Amino acid sequence: LKELFKDRPETRDLQQGYSTLLVIPKHCEKRLEGVLADTLAHPGSLTRAKLAYKVLHKNFETRDAALPMSIAIEYFHTASLLLDDLPCMDDAYTRRGQTCPHRIYGEAACILGALAFINRAYALVWQAMAGLPQTRSKPAAALLEHCLGAAGVINGQSMDVHFREGQKDEESVAAIARGKTVTLIRLTLVVPALMVGASAQEVALLDKLSLHWGSAYQLLDDFKDVLGDVTSAKTSGRDFELQRPNMVLCVGLNTSWQRLDTHFSKCEAVLTSLAELPRDWSFLTALQQHLLDERTRLQSLSQAA
Amino acid sequence: LKELFKDRPETRDLQQGYSTLLVIPKHCEKRLEGVLADTLAHPGSLTRAKLAYKVLHKNFETRDAALPMSIAIEYFHTASLLLDDLPCMDDAYTRRGQTCPHRIYGEAACILGALAFINRAYALVWQAMAGLPQTRSKPAAALLEHCLGAAGVINGQSMDVHFREGQKDEESVAAIARGKTVTLIRLTLVVPALMVGASAQEVALLDKLSLHWGSAYQLLDDFKDVLGDVTSAKTSGRDFELQRPNMVLCVGLNTSWQRLDTHFSKCEAVLTSLAELPRDWSFLTALQQHLLDERTRLQSLSQAA
Repeated sequence: LKELFKDRPETRDLQQGYSTLLVIPKHCEKRLEGVLADTLAHPGSLTRAKLAYKVLHKNFETRDAALPMSIAIEYFHTASLLLDDLPCMDDAYTRRGQTCPHRIYGEAACILGALAFINRAYALVWQAMAGLPQTRSKPAAALLEHCLGAAGVINGQSMDVHFREGQKDEESVAAIARGKTVTLIRLTLVVPALMVGASAQEVALLDKLSLHWGSAYQLLDDFKDVLGDVTSAKTSGRDFELQRPNMVLCVGLNTSWQRLDTHFSKCEAVLTSLAELPRDWSFLTALQQHLLDERTRLQSLSQAA
Repeated sequence: LKELFKDRPETRDLQQGYSTLLVIPKHCEKRLEGVLADTLAHPGSLTRAKLAYKVLHKNFETRDAALPMSIAIEYFHTASLLLDDLPCMDDAYTRRGQTCPHRIYGEAACILGALAFINRAYALVWQAMAGLPQTRSKPAAALLEHCLGAAGVINGQSMDVHFREGQKDEESVAAIARGKTVTLIRLTLVVPALMVGASAQEVALLDKLSLHWGSAYQLLDDFKDVLGDVTSAKTSGRDFELQRPNMVLCVGLNTSWQRLDTHFSKCEAVLTSLAELPRDWSFLTALQQHLLDERTRLQSLSQAA
């Protein structure tokens, strides 16, 4: 997603923000310190932070809120990765090319490290929202709570982890994608949009975009697993082996390509509608293009197989 | 601590608040639902909520904040218990007379349940602080973040869990009590005090009280483990077996009784100073009395042994 952030100063701000907005305390217990230091040293693509930043910093009134809020969203995501990789969840070996922290520092340190990111993230959200009028901060905070709470990503993750035990039909797989992937895109796009005072129409369009981008993003991820994409950040072929939710395994390759195209065309329609509004949402097209490029790449991989 | 809350309507408000301020969403994944429902059904003594409520509701301006804030503090505590009991931390079997949720619903559901309580707690804090002037909400939110963050209870818990690997001297054991027990009492007393606009003198006295109460409380807990107190909510005799931090095991019974009395006399001095101030802090003496009664009970247990 390098195209999304050609203006490098912003990227540097976000990279620096990621590694400095959580301060490892003096006298930190060694294993906890290890988890925090290793995690802060590998920020990943910062896609979520970049998107939120784009929404926020264009708006004069929320410029001060842009950095802390964007990093907060990224810290929530970081915490979710630390926890998702634990033995009782995805039992992962590597993340971002590094050995997962729980395999070096232990599970307890990893859970506590995740909590440190979550605590800091809520404080940064608090800081970012403090200067806003309540007409903006109230709905933004309510949506943030919904996305991160028992009705949002927590339930999505619980359905994901316990997939083997429940219904394994298409609707269940789609519900998990909505609960996890879609919810985190809503957090990234719609919460910042509410903070900048987006109109009801803009919010509705961004909600729709989150649904179809999230679903498309998850489908691409499922294709990567099935097609054995070596560029994937995760070990592939694990979904079948571990009976994880995977739409491609559920409905087959052909239907999945069709579903993917349906999601992309709905996103296209939303982007067209957004382009007609006064506020500039054009930066969103870069993400659409990135996802379309991924589709093309995975289709060649599929045909080569 | 029944004496602390003789006025039953408040207790009922808090019990009801505890079981209703986190709503289990429709379509909740079954294991997550189990963790949340079982935990909400066993609120425990609600000591932290009661103390915070006493500080807050006496103040007219923070009356609306009293219930959500008190329950938020209790939810943070609940989350910490859910996580502390996990196999990678204390590996507990029972809590509040019930089988630990992770032994019924699994570790993943338990971690996610803890996150649900944490997310809801931050939202309730937000709600409670929203109506306060920034001169109060800012320092209160900053202390809350400090108590719950990497420099506070998270580091305390990490030192606790990894105690076996580090220094096992008296200072390390005391540092763990400061990091965990003292920090959570500060959260319970000092954060609400800042919310009601307590003076610098009051805050300093409550900080000191938190230090000595927290240390005394932890010592009493350590005595319970060593003396094999059957009334304890936890399995006793585990600290020696598992090489857990325990001041009584570290400095012996006699020195521990002396330390305990030193803490109690410092608390007494603070309570005397607080009694001279215009604001009514007299409800705090009930907790002091409760702890003194515990000391008497444990001393007889010690002499009988």
